[in-house]
Amino acid sequence: MIVTIDKSASNGVIDALGAASVRSGATIRVIDWNDGSLSVNVLGQIEPDVLSHPAVAGIHHPSKPYRLASKEHRETTVVRVGDVEIGNGKPVIMAGPCVVSDVEQLVSAAEAVKAAGATILRGGAFKPRTSPYSFQGLGEEGLQILAGARAVTGLPVVTEVMEPDQVDVTAAYADMLQIGARNMANFPLLRKVGKTRTPVLLKRGFSATIEEWLMSAEYILAEGNAQVVLCERGIRTFDNSMRFNLDLNAVPFLKELTHLPVVVDPSHGTGKRSLVASMALAAIAAGADGLIIESEPNPDSAKCDSAQTIEPEQLAAIARKAMAIAELIEADELALV
Amino acid sequence: MIVTIDKSASNGVIDALGAASVRSGATIRVIDWNDGSLSVNVLGQIEPDVLSHPAVAGIHHPSKPYRLASKEHRETTVVRVGDVEIGNGKPVIMAGPCVVSDVEQLVSAAEAVKAAGATILRGGAFKPRTSPYSFQGLGEEGLQILAGARAVTGLPVVTEVMEPDQVDVTAAYADMLQIGARNMANFPLLRKVGKTRTPVLLKRGFSATIEEWLMSAEYILAEGNAQVVLCERGIRTFDNSMRFNLDLNAVPFLKELTHLPVVVDPSHGTGKRSLVASMALAAIAAGADGLIIESEPNPDSAKCDSAQTIEPEQLAAIARKAMAIAELIEADELALV
Amino acid sequence: MIVTIDKSASNGVIDALGAASVRSGATIRVIDWNDGSLSVNVLGQIEPDVLSHPAVAGIHHPSKPYRLASKEHRETTVVRVGDVEIGNGKPVIMAGPCVVSDVEQLVSAAEAVKAAGATILRGGAFKPRTSPYSFQGLGEEGLQILAGARAVTGLPVVTEVMEPDQVDVTAAYADMLQIGARNMANFPLLRKVGKTRTPVLLKRGFSATIEEWLMSAEYILAEGNAQVVLCERGIRTFDNSMRFNLDLNAVPFLKELTHLPVVVDPSHGTGKRSLVASMALAAIAAGADGLIIESEPNPDSAKCDSAQTIEPEQLAAIARKAMAIAELIEADELALV
Amino acid sequence: MIVTIDKSASNGVIDALGAASVRSGATIRVIDWNDGSLSVNVLGQIEPDVLSHPAVAGIHHPSKPYRLASKEHRETTVVRVGDVEIGNGKPVIMAGPCVVSDVEQLVSAAEAVKAAGATILRGGAFKPRTSPYSFQGLGEEGLQILAGARAVTGLPVVTEVMEPDQVDVTAAYADMLQIGARNMANFPLLRKVGKTRTPVLLKRGFSATIEEWLMSAEYILAEGNAQVVLCERGIRTFDNSMRFNLDLNAVPFLKELTHLPVVVDPSHGTGKRSLVASMALAAIAAGADGLIIESEPNPDSAKCDSAQTIEPEQLAAIARKAMAIAELIEADELALV
Repeated sequence: MIVTIDKSASNGVIDALGAASVRSGATIRVIDWNDGSLSVNVLGQIEPDVLSHPAVAGIHHPSKPYRLASKEHRETTVVRVGDVEIGNGKPVIMAGPCVVSDVEQLVSAAEAVKAAGATILRGGAFKPRTSPYSFQGLGEEGLQILAGARAVTGLPVVTEVMEPDQVDVTAAYADMLQIGARNMANFPLLRKVGKTRTPVLLKRGFSATIEEWLMSAEYILAEGNAQVVLCERGIRTFDNSMRFNLDLNAVPFLKELTHLPVVVDPSHGTGKRSLVASMALAAIAAGADGLIIESEPNPDSAKCDSAQTIEPEQLAAIARKAMAIAELIEADELALV
Repeated sequence: MIVTIDKSASNGVIDALGAASVRSGATIRVIDWNDGSLSVNVLGQIEPDVLSHPAVAGIHHPSKPYRLASKEHRETTVVRVGDVEIGNGKPVIMAGPCVVSDVEQLVSAAEAVKAAGATILRGGAFKPRTSPYSFQGLGEEGLQILAGARAVTGLPVVTEVMEPDQVDVTAAYADMLQIGARNMANFPLLRKVGKTRTPVLLKRGFSATIEEWLMSAEYILAEGNAQVVLCERGIRTFDNSMRFNLDLNAVPFLKELTHLPVVVDPSHGTGKRSLVASMALAAIAAGADGLIIESEPNPDSAKCDSAQTIEPEQLAAIARKAMAIAELIEADELALV
Repeated sequence: MIVTIDKSASNGVIDALGAASVRSGATIRVIDWNDGSLSVNVLGQIEPDVLSHPAVAGIHHPSKPYRLASKEHRETTVVRVGDVEIGNGKPVIMAGPCVVSDVEQLVSAAEAVKAAGATILRGGAFKPRTSPYSFQGLGEEGLQILAGARAVTGLPVVTEVMEPDQVDVTAAYADMLQIGARNMANFPLLRKVGKTRTPVLLKRGFSATIEEWLMSAEYILAEGNAQVVLCERGIRTFDNSMRFNLDLNAVPFLKELTHLPVVVDPSHGTGKRSLVASMALAAIAAGADGLIIESEPNPDSAKCDSAQTIEPEQLAAIARKAMAIAELIEADELALV
Repeated sequence: MIVTIDKSASNGVIDALGAASVRSGATIRVIDWNDGSLSVNVLGQIEPDVLSHPAVAGIHHPSKPYRLASKEHRETTVVRVGDVEIGNGKPVIMAGPCVVSDVEQLVSAAEAVKAAGATILRGGAFKPRTSPYSFQGLGEEGLQILAGARAVTGLPVVTEVMEPDQVDVTAAYADMLQIGARNMANFPLLRKVGKTRTPVLLKRGFSATIEEWLMSAEYILAEGNAQVVLCERGIRTFDNSMRFNLDLNAVPFLKELTHLPVVVDPSHGTGKRSLVASMALAAIAAGADGLIIESEPNPDSAKCDSAQTIEPEQLAAIARKAMAIAELIEADELALV
């Protein structure tokens, strides 16, 4: 059972719920959402009369294991990253280089992607690499460079965290914390970002089912962080002719199941520069709330993921067409029944 | 080596190629294309001077195993099904019921999908079913009903063939022969439809790689039938939350590799009615030349695939939006670089 | 419902079942098994009193869609290929070259694998090849060579059929008909081999589920051919470091579900010569009734599948160890509970 | 390049290598192995004359990205967990409950699996659970109980760590640290267990390729911990009829690539109690160095993974047969060529 509570009059009812849970053996978790509301997640049975308290604004009995992420819990969520809204109907473009290497590179990339229509800057400071001998990112120095690029361009920044101990320092610099595909089921990390009040971009593990992905979102929500965006970034299939296989089916399917915004990463999802534009537009046509794309001025000299990084000129064309497709999809005169 | 020949002056050079192949131990296959041209597929080495004959219009040395299907061989192919062109830049909608059950059902479905914007009628007479105890289709009676619906509505028809012995009778009634996913690697069947001059809709096997799929097209092309359309219809992955997983990455990837038109089947590709519209529009945004969709007036009473069959009203909305997206994708002022 | 009937007194009851099915709208299929028994497969409801006829020896209500293949239908099946029994507790080794190329090659290979312990000879006359330009096998000439090698060595032969029209000629020469992985869902072909009385080796499609595989067996059984052996030969997964991924889990899982014998093909299942011995022994330890292995005297010069073909000396070692493991698995003093 | 150094005379050469690396821009990493040897992992070029130092015992130029895990680096590794050796040719059985719930349960389980032939006790204190609402393990209290069971039975214990901050406390109690499948690519965690001198059981991610798995082992080895055992525990495929799909092909394939011991987990690998014995024996026949099996006295009341937990009596039968198969595989008179 999930109980929604009027925050201004909440103390009495929370105490009463606590007392009732002790009597019945249920567990209660009070969630003080960073969107200003208050919920109580009740695991187990509880005496029904405690729910007649006037501060109880709503009750629902979840049918899904991802009780807070489910559309049963709320209709939509708009996530705010700096001044940018994700999930308000207009596609958001996040773009930037794979990895932060120095101030000049990042500022020039940030200005280029901003001019192309991006409103959030991406870039890696902590990089998960298959080989221990590959460049692992600049760490905190990279975070400082990201913050510098934000100061210059005004773009809020999203960057990856890889372990619980990196969360606080990263949240001090960044506007959004990315959980990478390899960490989708790193539960201590999910709990830790759930305890912050910084928005989270939760990438899908490349062999995670839709339900497992929503359960990972649930770990974050259950700690009270309501600002979660799901990011489809390609799954692993039998077909290795591309690096990964972008699963756009996930977009409309998630829209039926969850209130959380959904964005798509066609760069990692295909691993192939020439396919990025087509799959980006397809993602928007499928209903995605935004795109995250690797782009910088000289893709061929990119320090990582060069083969999937596009030029800002192509990013600009994608951004223009994405907006037009999103409007067309919503247009009344062409309405889907 | 593939040698393109001026048909009006071809006899001499073909004889010369034949003689040269005997001397060098090469194999030659003369392909009298149903689009009016003539090619000679040379497997092995041949004396170069025989190629200086004036009737030789072109020579290329294929680098891909799918030598005729490759974009190296020709730039584009437009396939003609009745009066309908597939691959000319405007998306084509093929629609109709999963299976043909009787004249009234089919004619009413055909009129409904025509009104919704479909220009080719689909419907199954021979049905591949997982269980030997399921309804296997009406067979030739179903073909007669399809021909009747064409007579009433003017829509050309596409229908599946399952074995070599069905090809001639099906080609006598239908305008396009469908090879189903389970038969993509049924090589005797591919050779047999290759020997006809009827257009072929070649569905992707649900665990076939892109290259295996193009090799299956090659079986048809190698017999001289140039009228092949590829159809993505969903692959099998670890994620069974949907029936199949529509692989839209295949669309732009095929466009780089082959001159054959590519259409998408969002009905089988998702198996879920509520996802069909989003994935249909995404397919067009990804660059598909058309859609094949299961639709009939009363989806809930459909004899098979009911869960993925949509109403003609929704088909009409998809058709309108698909046209608008295709135009937008091509529009100069929004050009992709 | 499946009704087992005493063959000597069957006429009256079959007429009665037929009449009852007409009254109730059920369908009945009389199966005159090539193992001498008689069953009636009743699809739909039927009046219960017709079942009290004295010739009715047994009745069961199947809970699985593969009603005849299910262990509910019978406990075990022993398939006889020439004088060789598959499914009697002792592992059977089938071996030989990938493809039949000439008499000398095949006879020498047959003698070598016989000396190594093989009791059935394998070899391809009709070959399914991904490319239309690859060698497609010798066809009927290959069948004649196989029959010749049988005459010399006494080994019964198993060989692949690819289309319904090849079934009769192949059955005239061979002792067992192989359905290849690509044809596991070629339903017209399954029906055609079901109408013969020749044993069938049914390979698993490389992305077929266990249930789909049993449904394909059901197509054969439903035509009255009880002599079906299932062959696991590798599935397709995300991991392409091997050609296929031999799925040994299928062996004990099938043993719970079906009475049909199960053999394993470690040659195609791994595609890698150095892994064949380990996976062959693992298959026997998992409970397989036999192995089918590509082996010939000079693997490196094999006309196809050279990389997975082993020398007869290694085959002999596998055969010896396989027998020892099978005995050990069954040994009482080490009994599994 | 990897330089092996005589430890007793190492100082001079390490200084020389360091100086040379500064001059050439290479990176060197000195690895003081917990097996008593010393290696220098040189990334980049270095002047060749520094290698003529008398303390240089060996040099090899790795051809694989997993340079330390590769068989090029050393032939075999025997890992010691307490008094137990893994990788010495005799299969090791690790067994115990999924999760530690209390002292009585664990001690009784430990005594039962010891009597059945297990020599290492497994049990979870920190549990990765898909749902934030499932029991997450007892944490340090669970570690104390494990240490208590070791004191009673003498069995060394293996238990999972989920985040870097848990490593030191877990290493203080346990004899072997398990990295679970979901954490195979948790690189900060791998580095942290690499810095300990406690043996590590590295489970394969359920969609990790063989090479990715070896690269994860490389993260541990690169920190100087040579005591790594690989554990195959099932991969994710299209076939969901079992929980996972145990990939025994990995066993002989790894034996060609790496010197690290390989064990198999048939409990998670199948998720089905009735398949555990067959797949355990198949793993040994495939060449595995050991098994890790969930077993406790009352499987049906197990707090987690009940469906895949077996009774100690069945474990005893598996252990007996596993030993017999391992001997038979190695027996000279049945030698594989």
